[in-house]
Amino acid sequence: MQLIDGKAVAAQMKAEMAEEVKQIVAAGGKVPHLAAVLVGHDGGSETYVANKVRTCGELGFKSSLIRYEEDVTEEELLACVDRLNKDADVDGFIVQLPLPKHISAQKIIEAIDFHKDVDGFHPINVGRMSIGLPCFVSATPAGIVELFRRYNIPTRGKHCVVLGRSNIVGKPMAMLMMQKTEPGDCTVTVCHSRSENLREMCLSADIIIVALGVPEFLKGDMVKDGVVVIDVGTTRLPSSTTKSGFKLTGDVKFDEVAPKCSYITPVPGGVGPMTIVSLMHNTLLAATHAIYP
Amino acid sequence: MQLIDGKAVAAQMKAEMAEEVKQIVAAGGKVPHLAAVLVGHDGGSETYVANKVRTCGELGFKSSLIRYEEDVTEEELLACVDRLNKDADVDGFIVQLPLPKHISAQKIIEAIDFHKDVDGFHPINVGRMSIGLPCFVSATPAGIVELFRRYNIPTRGKHCVVLGRSNIVGKPMAMLMMQKTEPGDCTVTVCHSRSENLREMCLSADIIIVALGVPEFLKGDMVKDGVVVIDVGTTRLPSSTTKSGFKLTGDVKFDEVAPKCSYITPVPGGVGPMTIVSLMHNTLLAATHAIYP
Repeated sequence: MQLIDGKAVAAQMKAEMAEEVKQIVAAGGKVPHLAAVLVGHDGGSETYVANKVRTCGELGFKSSLIRYEEDVTEEELLACVDRLNKDADVDGFIVQLPLPKHISAQKIIEAIDFHKDVDGFHPINVGRMSIGLPCFVSATPAGIVELFRRYNIPTRGKHCVVLGRSNIVGKPMAMLMMQKTEPGDCTVTVCHSRSENLREMCLSADIIIVALGVPEFLKGDMVKDGVVVIDVGTTRLPSSTTKSGFKLTGDVKFDEVAPKCSYITPVPGGVGPMTIVSLMHNTLLAATHAIYP
Repeated sequence: MQLIDGKAVAAQMKAEMAEEVKQIVAAGGKVPHLAAVLVGHDGGSETYVANKVRTCGELGFKSSLIRYEEDVTEEELLACVDRLNKDADVDGFIVQLPLPKHISAQKIIEAIDFHKDVDGFHPINVGRMSIGLPCFVSATPAGIVELFRRYNIPTRGKHCVVLGRSNIVGKPMAMLMMQKTEPGDCTVTVCHSRSENLREMCLSADIIIVALGVPEFLKGDMVKDGVVVIDVGTTRLPSSTTKSGFKLTGDVKFDEVAPKCSYITPVPGGVGPMTIVSLMHNTLLAATHAIYP
């Protein structure tokens, strides 16, 4: 069993990107600039955005944080998106989700210029990914593909089971794994809460990507020997043994599943660290016009 | 075994749409208008476009046919698309594929205003379908979903295997069958030329949608009893027994597979007739602004 060290891969990618930014700047190019819009004071969102801003600093990116209180109107937020769309210095930007209920997240996402949509949530980027065209791929799926690539894990012709069909992870993950590329070229099965045969599907899988948000859902008796397991789950469970008072728990019962795996991602330290790095990578792609001219 | 009569369902949908057009016109509304752009004189394309124009007539739609010779430039075609985008009388239009090699089909597709993209090939419509938002769904997958609906075939929780991963059929079909809707809500597996385990996948399937373009690919010993089989294949094989000199052949070895099925579509007369009707339905949705305001 080999542990997939997302933290190490993320560190390596950060070093590569920091080097690229140095070269860009040395050649008189523009410093990549990521803007983040944060509404309210949700603890999780505060942490995520702070990490994004800090990582920008580490890589030599410029970052901007635009804050609104919970009572911001949809019109104000749309006006902000419009300003960022038009701001030539901003290469890419994100609006941190979730948003307050009186604001349509979908409306905000669709208002973002897809050329700057480094979260990859805009329908154009989703559609281009499905068709197999260059696009911004959302961060978590992009990070997982990068783990397959850097660990040289064979995927062609394999049976990849994706547990979960969210727009942010499950569906794009399935789309990426079925494309005629490597990593990719898998037989892909998407299972979800309604699946009658989830257990037998998992037992037949060469690769399982679990994104259900159900702590320790995947048990040892649901996987075959030699399987590759990618755990996207990050549920905060209360804990008396940690300083923060909670423990990040994955969707995989690690002690049971890991011994049967050829490769497995831990939680924390697996997929998590790749997500922010993928967002940074998208920002770099935006700044260098590598996706769209 | 029940035969799914696509021809009968298509006839019923046509009657419903013709009635709706009558009511629209009687209420002083606008006659739905579909335009088709045809480049060159490919036999298949000529037939498809002629059928589309004829069906418009049957339903009381207005149709326009814009013809170009093989040597039309990409610029001329893009200018045509631009004119149709701006023509307020045109509710929806298609550019018949394939196009000559010197023209980028993808560029043409992306130039079409997605509000008028009744073929559902524009990345925005593809992405919106994936996300589960209202959109124009491409004709063949939309027609197949309609067959499930009209025959009340249970799909929730079932294992649906899609053979083929084309942008026009396989991928959108998979996306539709995994959505939280009925028809839909399936466990979905996409198999293709690289799949190592295609046979066992088919044997475990409750529903098989075959879109490989390989005549008689699916054999009797590849399916379980009670399976639902949808045959998207339409290969023209030479034949000495037909007037036209060819015979439309599906991807399913019908005589072997049909006896094991609960439902099966024949070729011809199954999926085929639904495709044009779905395009007409999209045009009606465009004319009535049912998808986009």
